[in-house]
Amino acid sequence: MSLLTVGSVAFDAIETPFGKTDKIIGGAGTYIALSSSFFKKNQNIVSVVGGDFPQEMLDLLSSKGVDLNGLQIKKDEKTFFWSGKYHNDMNTRDTLITELNVLENFDPIIPAEYQGAEYLMLGNLSPQVQRAVIERLTERPKLIAMDTMNFWMDIALDELKKTMALVDVLIINDEEARQLSGESSLVKASKVIRAFGPKYLIIKKGEHGALLFHEEKVFFAPALPLEEVFDPTGAGDTFAGGFMGFLASTDDISFENMKRAIIAGSALASFCVEKFGTQRLEEINQQDLDNRIQEFVALSNFEMVYQAN
Amino acid sequence: MSLLTVGSVAFDAIETPFGKTDKIIGGAGTYIALSSSFFKKNQNIVSVVGGDFPQEMLDLLSSKGVDLNGLQIKKDEKTFFWSGKYHNDMNTRDTLITELNVLENFDPIIPAEYQGAEYLMLGNLSPQVQRAVIERLTERPKLIAMDTMNFWMDIALDELKKTMALVDVLIINDEEARQLSGESSLVKASKVIRAFGPKYLIIKKGEHGALLFHEEKVFFAPALPLEEVFDPTGAGDTFAGGFMGFLASTDDISFENMKRAIIAGSALASFCVEKFGTQRLEEINQQDLDNRIQEFVALSNFEMVYQAN
Repeated sequence: MSLLTVGSVAFDAIETPFGKTDKIIGGAGTYIALSSSFFKKNQNIVSVVGGDFPQEMLDLLSSKGVDLNGLQIKKDEKTFFWSGKYHNDMNTRDTLITELNVLENFDPIIPAEYQGAEYLMLGNLSPQVQRAVIERLTERPKLIAMDTMNFWMDIALDELKKTMALVDVLIINDEEARQLSGESSLVKASKVIRAFGPKYLIIKKGEHGALLFHEEKVFFAPALPLEEVFDPTGAGDTFAGGFMGFLASTDDISFENMKRAIIAGSALASFCVEKFGTQRLEEINQQDLDNRIQEFVALSNFEMVYQAN
Repeated sequence: MSLLTVGSVAFDAIETPFGKTDKIIGGAGTYIALSSSFFKKNQNIVSVVGGDFPQEMLDLLSSKGVDLNGLQIKKDEKTFFWSGKYHNDMNTRDTLITELNVLENFDPIIPAEYQGAEYLMLGNLSPQVQRAVIERLTERPKLIAMDTMNFWMDIALDELKKTMALVDVLIINDEEARQLSGESSLVKASKVIRAFGPKYLIIKKGEHGALLFHEEKVFFAPALPLEEVFDPTGAGDTFAGGFMGFLASTDDISFENMKRAIIAGSALASFCVEKFGTQRLEEINQQDLDNRIQEFVALSNFEMVYQAN
C-alpha cells in the first residue's frame, strides 16, 4: 500500500519560552515522513533541498525506509528556511524569517516508479503545487489527504478551492477552519468546508484534541494532557504523518480505522512537542509509541453501562 | 444511596447574542437538582428562597423527586437574583446585577431526616457555608463534591482552602484551576490543587470537554460539538448534578464509574446550553438523555487494534 508524501524538507530556527535553536532540520515533509515511518516501513517523498542540506539527515530518512529518488537536490541553491518565535502561551507565534530559496520555483517531479501511489499526503505547500502533484499521477490514489494554512486562504483562495475539490481528507486547525468557512461553530464550519470537496475533514485543536467529520458522523480524539509543551513546531505535520502512515500501513479507510489513525497521529504529535524540532521523533522507538497509544486508550475509553435506581 | 445538594435556588436574567430573558429560574442548586433527578429519583436539597419564588417551580422540583423540607422559604424577603450578559464568543460574561437578598445571611439548616446522606454535592456558595454543611452532618458522607469559583479565590482563599481540605471531589473550570494553582499547565495545576485535599479533581473546559484527575490516572470526556450554544448559564451546575446523580444512583465511586458519571454530566450539560435557563432540562426525557449519551459513546470510543506492515 504505497504512500507518497509531498512536502517541504527544510531548515528551521525556533525560539520558545524554553530556549532557542540554531538552524535545525524542519519542514512539513520531514515531520510527515519521520512520523509515518513508525507505521509505514517504506514510503516515497517528493521534495527539494539545496546543496547545504546535511547528508546525515538524508541518511536518517533513508534508514527509516524513506526513498529519496523523488527528493531533488539543487547543489547550487539553498534549502528553504523558516524562523519563528512562540509567544508565552505557545498557541501563537510570529514568523521572523522566511527564505523560500529552492521552494520558490519548486516543480514537483514524480519519479516513474512512484506512479500508482495508493495513499497521497500533500503537506502544506502552495495549492498550485499540490494540485500539480495530483494531476501528474496517472492513477488517482485511493486516498488523498492535504494540509494547508491561513496564508493560502489569504492570498490564493481560488487556487486552494480548486485543489480542495480534488482531495478526500482536509487537515487544518480550528482557526483555519473558521477562516475558510466564515463560521465560528466548528460543526457549521465542517459542513461549509466539506461542501468544497473533501469528504473527510479533520480539525486540529492543539492541546484540545482533534475532530474528524464525515457525513453525519463525528469523532473526537483528545490531546494527551502534558506538563509542558516544549516546542509545537511540526506537531500538525507529525499528526498528519501518523494518520496517513497508519492508514497506508493498515490499508483500511473505513471510518472506524480513521479513528485509530487519528489516535496514532495524536500519539506521535504528543512526542513531537516534548523537545525541539524532530529530536523526540528520532529518539523514540516502537515500544514508546505503543505505550503512548495505550495512554490514549486509558485517557478516552469508557464503557457506558448503568442501571439507575 | 441518599443524595444531598446544597446550592442556590434563584432568579437569573440573561443576555446572550441570541436574545435576552426577563427574570427566569436559575441557581446552582436548581440546575444540580434538575440534572441529578435524571438518575436519582429521590434526593434532598438545602437552600433558601424568598416569598417571591414561584410555587410552580417548587412543585416541579417536587415532581422530580426533590424533597423540599430543607428549602427555607423566607416569606418577607427576596430570592437571590443574578443578571449577566455573555460576550459574542460565549466564553466570557459580565455580571450586571447581583442581589444577594436571602443568600446574604443563609444559614444552611440540615433537617434531621437528611442526616446520614451518603453523597453530598456542595454547589457554589461561600466556602464558610459549604464547610458549615459538612460540619453539621453527624456522619461523614461517602463522597463529598464541591464547586467553587474565582470570586472566592479572590476574597476568601484561606476559607476556601479549609473547605477544600474536607472534600473528595473538586469541580472547577480551567481558568479557576490556573488561578487556584498558579500553574498554566493543567497537569501541573492538578497536582498543586489535589495537594490541598481533594483526591479527585475535575477540570471543566467548556466546549473543549472535561478532565478527571486521580492519583496517576487521567480521563478526558469530550464536549459534544454543537452547532450553536444558546445560553451557557448553568451548564457547569448541570454537569455537576449529572455527575453526582449518576454516582449516587449507581452507588459506585470507582474511577471507572466516575468516567461514566462524567459522560452523564457532559450529556446533560449539552442539553442545558441549547435553550435559555432550565428550559431544556425540563423538556427532555430519559430517552432523549439515553440517546445523547450514545452520541458521546460514538464520539469518543474507538478500538485500538492494528497490525503494521
